Amino acid sequence: MITSTSNAKVKRLVNLKKKKKLRDEEGVFLVEGIRMFREVPKDRLVEVYASEEFWNRERKAVEQVLAGTKVQPEILADFVFEYVSDTKTPQGILCLVRQKQYSITEIVKEKGGELPLLLVLDQIQDPGNLGTIVRTAEGAGVTGIVMSQDCVDMYNPKVVRSTMGAAYRVPFCYVDDLAEEVKQMKEAGICTYAAHLGGKNSYDEEDYRKASAFLIGNEGNGLRDEVADQAQVYIRIPMKGQVESLNAAVATAILTFEAARQRR
Amino acid sequence: MITSTSNAKVKRLVNLKKKKKLRDEEGVFLVEGIRMFREVPKDRLVEVYASEEFWNRERKAVEQVLAGTKVQPEILADFVFEYVSDTKTPQGILCLVRQKQYSITEIVKEKGGELPLLLVLDQIQDPGNLGTIVRTAEGAGVTGIVMSQDCVDMYNPKVVRSTMGAAYRVPFCYVDDLAEEVKQMKEAGICTYAAHLGGKNSYDEEDYRKASAFLIGNEGNGLRDEVADQAQVYIRIPMKGQVESLNAAVATAILTFEAARQRR
Repeated sequence: MITSTSNAKVKRLVNLKKKKKLRDEEGVFLVEGIRMFREVPKDRLVEVYASEEFWNRERKAVEQVLAGTKVQPEILADFVFEYVSDTKTPQGILCLVRQKQYSITEIVKEKGGELPLLLVLDQIQDPGNLGTIVRTAEGAGVTGIVMSQDCVDMYNPKVVRSTMGAAYRVPFCYVDDLAEEVKQMKEAGICTYAAHLGGKNSYDEEDYRKASAFLIGNEGNGLRDEVADQAQVYIRIPMKGQVESLNAAVATAILTFEAARQRR
Repeated sequence: MITSTSNAKVKRLVNLKKKKKLRDEEGVFLVEGIRMFREVPKDRLVEVYASEEFWNRERKAVEQVLAGTKVQPEILADFVFEYVSDTKTPQGILCLVRQKQYSITEIVKEKGGELPLLLVLDQIQDPGNLGTIVRTAEGAGVTGIVMSQDCVDMYNPKVVRSTMGAAYRVPFCYVDDLAEEVKQMKEAGICTYAAHLGGKNSYDEEDYRKASAFLIGNEGNGLRDEVADQAQVYIRIPMKGQVESLNAAVATAILTFEAARQRR
């Protein structure tokens, strides 16, 4: 059992929590909580850490999840676990999961007979927002997410937590030139839609049963002009009252679930 | 200019920020930021505070908003303003706004020829979530929101901020017995819908052009059984992948914007 916060393994975990650079170097990310631990794809599970209290209480549950893997859990004294944890009231279980990299080519292609339904995210900054977007996207059947480099890191612990597991499953990639990728989607026959004040048609008047991509902009500033300029169709989300814009996750939900509705 | 954080007015502002009880006693709430300040209904504006820096820079803009009111802005030294502010990077302007109370009778009645489109919120705890729900609701044309007493306070500064002004405009009330109110809605001819795993129809197969109410449950636990039991119709939001539930604001968006779509 590790009983000191100055233990090298503990220091590494804290750094993996805080530093994207280290996460990317090691090709792993941190996941906390029993639910997310249970949902980890087994072949990507690298290391497991439990608090002493959790281990004494839930040893069987942990061993059940680990059955068939070679992973041995490491036990941390409760105060050490609290030191490592990213949450105020830690559940007592965390693990390291192997990152999965997708190429833009994989993201945009047809999968299992389903025409692409893509999300293109421009400068999404808020971890909770990105997490909610990814969780919503999985529920709506989005087939892939393409992000500008300056979106928050998908493997940030807060993002991972808010995805409720969707971070394991929804294919995504970061690209250097988002506008260029949108242009190439258009050329590849994927219709690109931007929610925009200049939109002529309401979002529910378009046909999303064909290969489609929705462009979603930054929480405060919307889409950058250079990205919006590459969209093929501007659509409106009609709004009542004095509301000028919607939360990025809310806009995502409205658009992607309309596409899901049409595709049923 | 107030130059001390131990000034009685400063202490009162901090208490109004933190304490629902005091807000309710005085019948006011705090609003921060220039955008929300501009949108305050003039007849509800009670007091205005600006940081010295903001006042020197934006005096004209503030006076423009205050034209026609009797409100005199009070200036706070920048560090005092920071002390009072609820945000990490304060904009330098905050005001006290009169609370508006609605009765359940006002909330559920027809307004301006529009049939009721209500939200019923059960134990929504997260301030950002409630704020986003209210902002989304205004955009979708929701005519009123009914909440259980244990929902977070609408006049909590974080809630107010996330509503982006919708807190001024969407009628709402808190009730002691939410299940009883749902029952009474049904008796008053308002069809009550609960998103529920036991739902037979998908949410887009119902007709929301009649008087309707959507029941939205707590972020982690969903609707309490006693509330769900009173719903007239259980509906499903069909979900792909391994998603088991959606964020409360996301579910609200999907349901209310489907209602808005049908009502156009």
